[in-house]
Amino acid sequence: MEKRIAIVRGDYIGPEIVSEAMKVLRCIETKYDHTFIYDEVLAGGAAIDATGECLPQISIDALKQADAVLLGAVGGPKYDSQPANNRPEKALLRIRSLLGLFANLRPAILFPQLADASPLKPEIVQKGIDFVVVRELTGGIYFGKHETIGDRAVDEMAYSVDEIKRIAKVAFETAQVRHHKVTCVDKANVLDTSKLWRKVVQELAKEYPDVTLNFMYVDNAAMQLCKDPSQFDVILTENMFGDILSDEASMLTGTIGTIGSASLGSTSIGMYEPIHGSAPDIAGKDMANPLGTILSVAMMMRYSFHLEKEAKDIEKAVHAILDQGYRTADMMSKGMKQVGCQEMGDLVVKQI
Amino acid sequence: MEKRIAIVRGDYIGPEIVSEAMKVLRCIETKYDHTFIYDEVLAGGAAIDATGECLPQISIDALKQADAVLLGAVGGPKYDSQPANNRPEKALLRIRSLLGLFANLRPAILFPQLADASPLKPEIVQKGIDFVVVRELTGGIYFGKHETIGDRAVDEMAYSVDEIKRIAKVAFETAQVRHHKVTCVDKANVLDTSKLWRKVVQELAKEYPDVTLNFMYVDNAAMQLCKDPSQFDVILTENMFGDILSDEASMLTGTIGTIGSASLGSTSIGMYEPIHGSAPDIAGKDMANPLGTILSVAMMMRYSFHLEKEAKDIEKAVHAILDQGYRTADMMSKGMKQVGCQEMGDLVVKQI
Ligand SMILES: CC(C)[C@H](C(=O)O)[C@@H](O)C(=O)O
Ligand SMILES: CC(C)[C@H](C(=O)O)[C@@H](O)C(=O)O
Repeated sequence: MEKRIAIVRGDYIGPEIVSEAMKVLRCIETKYDHTFIYDEVLAGGAAIDATGECLPQISIDALKQADAVLLGAVGGPKYDSQPANNRPEKALLRIRSLLGLFANLRPAILFPQLADASPLKPEIVQKGIDFVVVRELTGGIYFGKHETIGDRAVDEMAYSVDEIKRIAKVAFETAQVRHHKVTCVDKANVLDTSKLWRKVVQELAKEYPDVTLNFMYVDNAAMQLCKDPSQFDVILTENMFGDILSDEASMLTGTIGTIGSASLGSTSIGMYEPIHGSAPDIAGKDMANPLGTILSVAMMMRYSFHLEKEAKDIEKAVHAILDQGYRTADMMSKGMKQVGCQEMGDLVVKQI
Repeated sequence: MEKRIAIVRGDYIGPEIVSEAMKVLRCIETKYDHTFIYDEVLAGGAAIDATGECLPQISIDALKQADAVLLGAVGGPKYDSQPANNRPEKALLRIRSLLGLFANLRPAILFPQLADASPLKPEIVQKGIDFVVVRELTGGIYFGKHETIGDRAVDEMAYSVDEIKRIAKVAFETAQVRHHKVTCVDKANVLDTSKLWRKVVQELAKEYPDVTLNFMYVDNAAMQLCKDPSQFDVILTENMFGDILSDEASMLTGTIGTIGSASLGSTSIGMYEPIHGSAPDIAGKDMANPLGTILSVAMMMRYSFHLEKEAKDIEKAVHAILDQGYRTADMMSKGMKQVGCQEMGDLVVKQI
C-alpha cells in the first residue's frame, strides 16, 4: 500500500515525539511492505517562525494532498504575543475546518500498567476506564460568529441537523464495535442547540437498535467522570463540551502522555495527534513521552488506511514495553526503568 | 434583627431538607434573639402542581419582598413532559435573573472527616481541597438569545464589560478574605467573550495588589481540578464553565450532600441552596442529607445578614456532629453512626 502522510512536527516537544513516531511508521513500512511518502508541512509556531503565518498557503496545499496527517503539538509561550488570528492554535482550528475533520475520537483508556498514575482512588480505578469521547470538531461555538463591539463580546454556538447527524453516526458506529452504549452529553435544560442534539440523536438511535443510548447533562457528566468512569463506553458531545470532558477524562487515566487521538471527516483523510500539548518546559531534553504520538500512528493505520493488523501490532508493542517496566519521566514510578524519548521510540520499534 | 426569608421547599427531597434547615433557623432566632419571618413560596415542580406555572406571579412578588431566599431543590422526572419554558429549572433561572443574582459562590471544601468519600486518591486529598468557585450567574449563554429556525439552532453567549467587572470584583474580594489567589478560567484561545473577560479581569486586578491572578483554559482547569485541587483558592468563571467546573469540584470533595451555595446580587438579597439536586430516588424516605441546606443557612447569615457569629456557630455545629461520627446514608462509611435526615437536623440544632 502506498500512502502520503503529511508530517506536522510542530513546536517545542513536537519534533521530538514526531521523530519517534516516524521510526514506528518506517518500521511498519518495512515489516508490512507498505510505502509511506512523508511530506513535511509547517504549521503553528514553526510556520510563524519560518513564514510569519501560522498556516501558509503552501502548507494548506500539502495537507490537502495527503492521505493522513501526523501532528506533534503546536503552540507555546513564544507565540503568545501573536495577534489572535495568527496564533498557533488557529492553525489547528483551520486545518480541522479545511479538511472537514468533524469527528474527534479521544480514547480514555487506563493502562493497567499505569493504574497508579491515575488521580482516582484504587476502588474506582479497579473497575477500569475504557471509553471514547466522540467530540464534534468543526461546529458549535468554535466556528460560530465571534464579535466584539464596543463593550460587548458575543460568541455564537450553532448546530444544524446535518452536523449533528454525521457526528452521531460516528458515535453509534464506534459503539457498535465497542460495548454498544452511547451517552450523549448536552445542556438541554438550557440550550436550543442541545435540544436539537437530543432530537436528532434520539431519532438516529432507531437505526442502531443494538446500541443503548442515554442522555446526560454536561455538569453531571463532569461529576460522573470522576465518580465512576467505568459507566461510559462512548461519550458523544459537541465541540466545547468535548474539549472540556475529554481533557478531564484523559487526566483521570493518569497518562496524558500516552493517549493518541484521531480527527476524521467524510473522506478517509484524517489527522492524528497526541492529546497532550507542546510541553515547553521539557522541550529539547529528550524527556517527552512519544507513546501518545505512536498510538496516534496506530489510529492512523486503523482509521485512514484500514490496516487493522498494523494498528494492533503497534498497540501491542506499546503494551509490551510498558509491561517490561519502561517509562518516560512523566509516567515514572518506583521500581520502573526510566528511559528518554528516543530510547522509548527505539524500544517500541524493536518490539514491533 | 428582623428579617424576611422566602422559603422555597421545592420538589422531592426539597421539603425534607428545608424542614431541617428551618429547625436551625429557629434555633438561631432563639439563641441570638433574632426574628425571622418565613414566607412560603411555590416555585418549580410544586408550583406547577399547584398553579400550572413554574413561577407564578404571586411567587415573584413574595420573592421580591424577601431579605433572603432559602431553596431546597427543584425539578425531577415528574416534570419532564413540561414544555421547555415551564420546566422547574426555568423557575430557578428566572429567580436568578429577577433578583439580579449575578454571583454564585460554590465552596468546594473537603471535610477532613469525610476525606474517604473523595474519589481522589489519598496522596491528592491529603493536600486538602478548599476553594470557592465564583460563577457568573445571570449572563453568558444561559441568558443570550436561543433560537431554532428550521434545521438550525443557535445559542448566543454574550458578556459586557460591566457584567464581567462586577463578578470579578466579587472574586477578588472573596480572595482577599481567603488565600489571595484568583484563577480566572476561560477559553480565550477561541472565544471573544473570554478575551474580553481576560482584558477586564487583568485591568481590575490592579486594584487588588494583594491578590495574585492567573488565567487558565477551561479544558486545562477540568484536568487540574482532578490532578491537584489544592492549587486553587478562588476560581472565577463565566456561567456555563462555572456550572461544569463547580459540579466537578464538588464531586471531588466526595460530599455533594454537604455543600451549600450562595447566589448574590448588588443588593443584600441572596438565594441560598444546597448544590445537590432533588434526588427523586430517596424522596420521602427520611434519608436525604440536610447538611448542604443547613450550611446554606450559614451562608445566608454571613452574606445577606452579616451575622458572622451565627454563621460560624452553624458551621462549627456541623463539624462537631461529623466529628462525633454521625452520617446520613450518602456519607456513610464503616464505624460511623447512620442517622436519617430528621435526626441529623436535630443533632445540629442540639449542638448549636
Ligand atoms: C488549542 C485549542 C484551540 C484546542 C481546542 O480547544 O480544540 C485544544 O484544546 C484541543 O482540544 O485540541
Ligand atoms: C438546573 C440548571 C439549569 C442549573 C444550571 O445549569 O445553572 C443547575 O445545573 C445549577 O448549576 O444550578
